Amino acid sequence: MSLLVVGSVALDSVKTPFGEIREGLGGSATYFSISAGCFTKVRLVAVVGEDFPAKHVAFLKSRGVDLRGLARAKGKTFRWEGFYGDDMNEAKTLKTDLNVFETFSPELPSPYKKTPFVFLANIDPDLQRNVVDQISDPYLVACDTMNYWISSKPRSLRKTLSRVDILFLNEGEALQLAGGSNLMKAARHLLSLGPTTVVIKRGEYGALLFRKDSLFWAPAFPLEKVRDPTGAGDSFAGGFMGYLSRRKDLSEARLRRALVYGSIMASFNVEAFSLNRLRRIKREDVDRRYKAFRGLVRF
Amino acid sequence: MSLLVVGSVALDSVKTPFGEIREGLGGSATYFSISAGCFTKVRLVAVVGEDFPAKHVAFLKSRGVDLRGLARAKGKTFRWEGFYGDDMNEAKTLKTDLNVFETFSPELPSPYKKTPFVFLANIDPDLQRNVVDQISDPYLVACDTMNYWISSKPRSLRKTLSRVDILFLNEGEALQLAGGSNLMKAARHLLSLGPTTVVIKRGEYGALLFRKDSLFWAPAFPLEKVRDPTGAGDSFAGGFMGYLSRRKDLSEARLRRALVYGSIMASFNVEAFSLNRLRRIKREDVDRRYKAFRGLVRF
Repeated sequence: MSLLVVGSVALDSVKTPFGEIREGLGGSATYFSISAGCFTKVRLVAVVGEDFPAKHVAFLKSRGVDLRGLARAKGKTFRWEGFYGDDMNEAKTLKTDLNVFETFSPELPSPYKKTPFVFLANIDPDLQRNVVDQISDPYLVACDTMNYWISSKPRSLRKTLSRVDILFLNEGEALQLAGGSNLMKAARHLLSLGPTTVVIKRGEYGALLFRKDSLFWAPAFPLEKVRDPTGAGDSFAGGFMGYLSRRKDLSEARLRRALVYGSIMASFNVEAFSLNRLRRIKREDVDRRYKAFRGLVRF
Repeated sequence: MSLLVVGSVALDSVKTPFGEIREGLGGSATYFSISAGCFTKVRLVAVVGEDFPAKHVAFLKSRGVDLRGLARAKGKTFRWEGFYGDDMNEAKTLKTDLNVFETFSPELPSPYKKTPFVFLANIDPDLQRNVVDQISDPYLVACDTMNYWISSKPRSLRKTLSRVDILFLNEGEALQLAGGSNLMKAARHLLSLGPTTVVIKRGEYGALLFRKDSLFWAPAFPLEKVRDPTGAGDSFAGGFMGYLSRRKDLSEARLRRALVYGSIMASFNVEAFSLNRLRRIKREDVDRRYKAFRGLVRF
């Protein structure tokens, strides 16, 4: 079934101990779309500037991403510049040029207004709700967020949370949003704010799926080469949502498998800069890693 | 089958955000013995001073620990004082009084010299080898170590590693000992130093079991209340080695279950100060948590 994502399309300059890239294709909606695109048809809602390279548009199209929702505005494309030290768990931002993203106001093309599965990537919670408002009776709405919105727009974020089914966030953000230092308590609190499912991402330590009466723990796929963690969280959400949106079934078993697919897609993503690993992924690669995941936790 | 541990018996003063304890029973050999004692008969080799409270001796005996190897020396018992901040993953040491432990030279009572399973807790690697020398043809030797020995006695530690089958250490120590920042590569390097199995403990993020051709990931049991992490690593090793030493079978399946039992015993330990939770543990409690573990990772 179709899956809509709203978020950023960006040009990222990233340096890690293993190399660097200048103005590579990036952005939350991009990583999400390419990752989810392994499983389902993705409708993208984002904005780029006049300078956005045609080759990136061609690439997204070649992977089956529906670009009718990709607006092109006067000005330059959103750019981010950052680096990772030996601790690849956290990016240090050097520069953020919002450019056309600064005045982004998502307008859904009319065929998008009936999309059953919706993912609101990490953008202003006001805009996240604005997108939900434009969709008639979605089957499932999920969102991501970050420390910036947690501290600068806590009320708006709460309003958004009251309208989503699944919340994705990383461990530090979960503790920040809920207050306190215990992750189990934090997750319980987050479940009381609206979502029926909370997914907590822990980078190389895996991810947790919290629901009212259950808890599932997926490892991260252990890698010898992590070259660039940029986009790992959005690739994760893409694998999760892409798998899930193949049919209307939110059983515990399917949610668990979705978490594993999320972890798998994130593991591919971090093996190369930009989308260079994801762009070569075939379904067989995903299946092979899924099998390896089973072996990793079986006892 | 019998399992021998050599390590420390101490009186610990610990403060955490959830309370504190003054001169509670502690020490690596103590945590290990009580934890492993849920599965098998443990022979303890350690030293205490003249001031060591009789009630602690009585408690260890009541849990079936064989104390023929517990020497009592002139002087005071080893004392450690530390605290944990909100990040319960790392202890800050305030004071270490080695006392009688400073001149500890383990002498095995003659019945101990034929013990099939041996655990060398975190002590001077010279002493670790000295203990192995006293045992005739052990079936399995495991050891733990720490940053202090990795930096101060690297050569001696390597000699010890060449004589052990299983190495336990935490993530930071693994990276320090192997050099580099990638855990997979570090584990592969550690396996080249002698051990056929490397267990890497990651606190609340679980533990990994590395062997030449396999990798297993066990989660940590998620807890709402972590009161005092002191002794978690030794309780972990105790659960692992206690389960394993019930028979001579080092199959992959048994090693994996051992890792889960290690994680379970550590999870009980951190729920209370000193050994206050472990001292009340029954086999049914362990079995219940084992079942919950399966539910936690099943997909």
